[in-house]
Amino acid sequence: MAGSPDPSCVFCKIAAGQIPCFKVYEDDVVLAFLDIGPIVRGHTLVIPKAHHATVMEIPPELLGAVNQRIPKIAKAVLAEVGVSACHVLVNNGAEAMQSVHHLHYHIIPRTPGDGIHIPWNTRNLDKAAGATLAQAIQKGIHP
Amino acid sequence: MAGSPDPSCVFCKIAAGQIPCFKVYEDDVVLAFLDIGPIVRGHTLVIPKAHHATVMEIPPELLGAVNQRIPKIAKAVLAEVGVSACHVLVNNGAEAMQSVHHLHYHIIPRTPGDGIHIPWNTRNLDKAAGATLAQAIQKGIHP
Repeated sequence: MAGSPDPSCVFCKIAAGQIPCFKVYEDDVVLAFLDIGPIVRGHTLVIPKAHHATVMEIPPELLGAVNQRIPKIAKAVLAEVGVSACHVLVNNGAEAMQSVHHLHYHIIPRTPGDGIHIPWNTRNLDKAAGATLAQAIQKGIHP
Repeated sequence: MAGSPDPSCVFCKIAAGQIPCFKVYEDDVVLAFLDIGPIVRGHTLVIPKAHHATVMEIPPELLGAVNQRIPKIAKAVLAEVGVSACHVLVNNGAEAMQSVHHLHYHIIPRTPGDGIHIPWNTRNLDKAAGATLAQAIQKGIHP
């Protein structure tokens, strides 16, 4: 059933206390803990306790509740690391580098000169193609 | 006042309809539109209509409301692009590559072979340092 623990999921086991973690926050909805493979100091994960794979699959209300917890967690992470900027990133799906298929927010503090470079090769949006695409997406959204 | 339109903010002007956009979704809380400098086809931004710079500064309840809209928007973007994976990314602060200082979620569809590579150079978390850091962050969180 959607939201039930997945016996093969390492984050479900961490949420259930069956695997230890370096916990930074916990309540009834979320668990936040240090990534054991950090890309920078303070790299923190925030997960819903319930098992949902991606932002496309989690019930919207629960995604809202998870995100309500992000500001206080991010602020505490940044205060401790001593910086003021961070990425908040979700990788949804294997093609987007998701390795554990239990939704998780990466909080990644950024320090000037930390060497992280996310490639950002923009192109100009073609106006006609943009108008067509926007309209097509708009029609696909069912509130 | 926090949340009020910032006269120098391009996203406030888009939210107010003073600058056009390729809109994909709008309601009382958010506006979603195509990034005019996309890094992939379907690159979409979701912004709160109210002006807040980052996830650290926006009221938590509003951040939750913004994120409740993400699943339906992301699903429609992916359906139209014809892929199943995406990044959901917020750059918070100039050191995290934030260029417009009005909170915005990037929805970045991913296609196998699209050439995007986010560097992910992990190291192992030192257990003693991790325990100390997690405890320090935990103490800094005030629910």
